[in-house]
Amino acid sequence: MIEFYTAATPNGYKVAIMLEETALPYTPHFLTLSDNEQKQPDFLAINPNGRIPAIVDDGFAVFESGAILLYLAEKTGRFLSFDPRQRSVAVQWLMWQMGGLGPMMGQLNVFKRYFPEQIPAAIARYERESYRLFGVMDGRLAEHEYLAGADYGVADMAAWPWVAIHGWPGLSLEAYPHLARWHDAIAARPAVQRAQQVPPRPSATVEDDRVRTERARAILV
Amino acid sequence: MIEFYTAATPNGYKVAIMLEETALPYTPHFLTLSDNEQKQPDFLAINPNGRIPAIVDDGFAVFESGAILLYLAEKTGRFLSFDPRQRSVAVQWLMWQMGGLGPMMGQLNVFKRYFPEQIPAAIARYERESYRLFGVMDGRLAEHEYLAGADYGVADMAAWPWVAIHGWPGLSLEAYPHLARWHDAIAARPAVQRAQQVPPRPSATVEDDRVRTERARAILV
Repeated sequence: MIEFYTAATPNGYKVAIMLEETALPYTPHFLTLSDNEQKQPDFLAINPNGRIPAIVDDGFAVFESGAILLYLAEKTGRFLSFDPRQRSVAVQWLMWQMGGLGPMMGQLNVFKRYFPEQIPAAIARYERESYRLFGVMDGRLAEHEYLAGADYGVADMAAWPWVAIHGWPGLSLEAYPHLARWHDAIAARPAVQRAQQVPPRPSATVEDDRVRTERARAILV
Repeated sequence: MIEFYTAATPNGYKVAIMLEETALPYTPHFLTLSDNEQKQPDFLAINPNGRIPAIVDDGFAVFESGAILLYLAEKTGRFLSFDPRQRSVAVQWLMWQMGGLGPMMGQLNVFKRYFPEQIPAAIARYERESYRLFGVMDGRLAEHEYLAGADYGVADMAAWPWVAIHGWPGLSLEAYPHLARWHDAIAARPAVQRAQQVPPRPSATVEDDRVRTERARAILV
């Protein structure tokens, strides 16, 4: 049984998607980030970085969403090619998400929604960078069905939850038709839909917005 | 023969270290980032993201420093354990560098050294986050010789060039004795010293500072 520590964030949903796609048995544990549960000693023993998501598989702790995806892919032999070159292509796009799309959209969220002061130059920087990265994905997806090529896999699971929340920091997919096609195809997968209930993805009510902002402040600022 | 596309940045040095440690034959190509050579069509065919480092190994292109490290580790069977759990620990710390230490120190460089205006709140955010990450590493290295455990490997190669430039954005290792011990041990490795000549790491002269700032502006802002 896998113990899955998570919250309603894009990085958490990456792992929820993988767990649902592979149908591995797991027990979810939802952390209240605004209460700093991810900074308590029992959780730091699992992830010394104090962030969700993390899993514990038969006593073995794994942190960092990208590392969890690769661990579960190796455990199950699914969603990652065994061919060294094809496998590397998937890892390249996974790393691109981990080092680029995630951090840059994360900073945009911070400066647009959670920072105590509005700093237009910082917002503009991260909007520009997020759209540049959308453009890179759009170019890739113009030529390939999925990020790593013909098959849906870990790189898509890593990027999708970030693309799916593009509206949160006020971004649009309108100028990126291939990215929008890919987004919609993945959104239609039953496992992805189930994953968004682990935990339930906040809706767009004002109250949820407030809670979500509080939660995100606790993680990001 | 491996074609290695790089410049004098921490992400470039990660791969230079791996190539020197493994003694793989390679040809370095130094891109002038301030001339936007990394955005030209011939380079975008290698890395659609338009960033260094990238390699081409017998016609196969690999981009993202973290993906290159894993590709070369799998190619050579070195600097990454074959044991699934021990291997995952290394991948976890590699991902932690790719998604945390690198992007956060990168943003600190941007706001401290390259941004057209000084924004104290943004600088403070990334200083705080960089030191938090130094603290996470220090705690890990208090208990283990290297990031993944007893053996030097890809996670160390990924993190070291960033820790090595801590002075550039004005950070100090003084409060992090285990991190400093680890930094010095890796700095003493002959392969690491050779790697810092690929290309020669800028010295601290005023002129070099200016060139380095120009180059970094071209990548980061």
